[in-house]
Amino acid sequence: MSSMSGRLRIDTQAIKRNYALIDRVVGQSCVTGASVKADCYGLGAEGVLPALFDQGCRDFFVATIEEGMRARKILGDGANIYILNGFWPDLQQDFLAYQLTPVLNALDDIERYNAFSKENGRDLPALLHFDTAMNRLGLPQGEAQILCDDLSRLDAINVQYVMSHFSSSDDRSAAQNAQQNERFRGITKHFPQAKYSLCNSGGVFQSSDYHFDLVRPGIALYGGAPITGEENPMELVLRLDVPVLQVHSVKAGETAGYNATYKFERDSYVAVVSLGYADGVFRSLSNNGALYWNGVRMPFRGRVSMDLIICDLCDVPQNQYPAHGDVAEFIGNHQTIDDIARDAGTISYEVITALGRRYIREYA
Amino acid sequence: MSSMSGRLRIDTQAIKRNYALIDRVVGQSCVTGASVKADCYGLGAEGVLPALFDQGCRDFFVATIEEGMRARKILGDGANIYILNGFWPDLQQDFLAYQLTPVLNALDDIERYNAFSKENGRDLPALLHFDTAMNRLGLPQGEAQILCDDLSRLDAINVQYVMSHFSSSDDRSAAQNAQQNERFRGITKHFPQAKYSLCNSGGVFQSSDYHFDLVRPGIALYGGAPITGEENPMELVLRLDVPVLQVHSVKAGETAGYNATYKFERDSYVAVVSLGYADGVFRSLSNNGALYWNGVRMPFRGRVSMDLIICDLCDVPQNQYPAHGDVAEFIGNHQTIDDIARDAGTISYEVITALGRRYIREYA
Repeated sequence: MSSMSGRLRIDTQAIKRNYALIDRVVGQSCVTGASVKADCYGLGAEGVLPALFDQGCRDFFVATIEEGMRARKILGDGANIYILNGFWPDLQQDFLAYQLTPVLNALDDIERYNAFSKENGRDLPALLHFDTAMNRLGLPQGEAQILCDDLSRLDAINVQYVMSHFSSSDDRSAAQNAQQNERFRGITKHFPQAKYSLCNSGGVFQSSDYHFDLVRPGIALYGGAPITGEENPMELVLRLDVPVLQVHSVKAGETAGYNATYKFERDSYVAVVSLGYADGVFRSLSNNGALYWNGVRMPFRGRVSMDLIICDLCDVPQNQYPAHGDVAEFIGNHQTIDDIARDAGTISYEVITALGRRYIREYA
Repeated sequence: MSSMSGRLRIDTQAIKRNYALIDRVVGQSCVTGASVKADCYGLGAEGVLPALFDQGCRDFFVATIEEGMRARKILGDGANIYILNGFWPDLQQDFLAYQLTPVLNALDDIERYNAFSKENGRDLPALLHFDTAMNRLGLPQGEAQILCDDLSRLDAINVQYVMSHFSSSDDRSAAQNAQQNERFRGITKHFPQAKYSLCNSGGVFQSSDYHFDLVRPGIALYGGAPITGEENPMELVLRLDVPVLQVHSVKAGETAGYNATYKFERDSYVAVVSLGYADGVFRSLSNNGALYWNGVRMPFRGRVSMDLIICDLCDVPQNQYPAHGDVAEFIGNHQTIDDIARDAGTISYEVITALGRRYIREYA
């Protein structure tokens, strides 16, 4: 391997096929947008956004205005870019200059944007976000009531979509999904002329009742399982291979890594790889995660270090040990981002947004 | 606040004072180097390296050759740059071109580098790394014995330092520290002409017995506590402030965030901030971490989301609630990187290497 760092391959063709699959699932009456916040969940806006656009996506959701400005530079004029974290008066001229559409999350947000729109003498576009369970962003029930009782608060705003956000769509058994859908339908009745959007990735695969006019999948585009405990219908997008730096023997009774948290029960061999928590491999994978070498699992021994991990060759035949410079798999056919998330006690979203900056990144 | 993203301030003057403190602790007979791998533990090589150089540091340790090449571009010719992850034959010409000194971790490493040095007709410089407890990188005991019995294996190498690395120097009670020191002293006897290096940050503050000729602190430079459970002698380097996006009421019995993992016991108000696990705030801080507003703790409620966190205003007087655009402290005087690490069940090193790319970064 000609680099001392890991190689992260991002298959944009697979992202396009994942987009196409979701687009088929929701059918022709529903638009398929994309959640591309946090640098496309860490995969890289410059590589991912053009692929989605090329596949027909025109509706892109980012978190901050800074992300929106960057997306506009990449995508050009043909895309709709929505700022989930709302309108920001200090940067209001950038909303105009970059044609960014805010998602309005509160009465205050609406008041500021309505005033700004009037100042500019036109109906500026916006999405309205109603909270139906999260208590995160979005109009809480009380504010929603005030707005629905006085829609003149929106008199200078072109409401393109009314939206809400699922709290538990990764969990098919959660009663909250149907409850949120019901609340959302109640809200939509106040906006008969508008279009509606409720679904993230999980919602897309839960029920066509939830699809409405626009879906906003994220993790599924990037290959993560949309619903926990069900077969993942999405295609693998990421492959991460890392070089072996050293292979050496250890004796029974010796320990591995910082603070000696692992003791070898028998004589063994280990491979030390160029990968660590600075690359986004969580320390919670200490004594818990694994790499794969020729399809054989090499469990982590001891703590994950900043730049290094010690892997046990206990299950690798001795005549097949890796050598200096060989590459082992961290993400790929043998270990998915959901597998890693399970071992680390988190979700695939955090696994991929944490992917570090040292990897050689290749887009194919 | 004129940005929708958090503002991360990196006080390079404090880094310089931390360097100066360590330099005083080890005294004039010992050189103070710096561990600057992983982009200076996530703080940014372009901002941090010149400050350390300006304070007199000339010995810089990075993990990979890619990091070394970048450091050389920033530092110019006057610095010694050591590649901890060893020699890499595929990139051997870059070691010459960028004047990078490998840390040789195995007999194989030594053999390859010795041959390369001979090809180039000169004594190329290197450090020798002996493992004394970690079973990570470094010559294991068996390989060390072979080398010490036949030092002609090094006949074309200019050994600048013989080194090892502490496993448990953050723990003053660990017997391993004195054991490693003893083993290391045994090895040094085979290299009477060389200079020696053993200490990371913890070692510096453990004992002057461990200082030898060169110390290589990392976390202490960046403000982290070198020894767990003792008063931190280092100065605060990082401040991270994040904007409030929305303040709203919640009712007793309602839940917060994904999968409804928190239920409010009484009517309350929450502040939703522009910060999430995509910014390096671990999901393990769900229902566990906090922000500070005017010095008052605002505990996280529910799960940390990718871009958002819900904070409870339970302890903030109602007439002092933050407003849209106000900024709250995540890292600063009220909450150190060690505090966050404790709450997240990890170490300060992981907290800072995980700091995300969305922040507006300011170096002062």
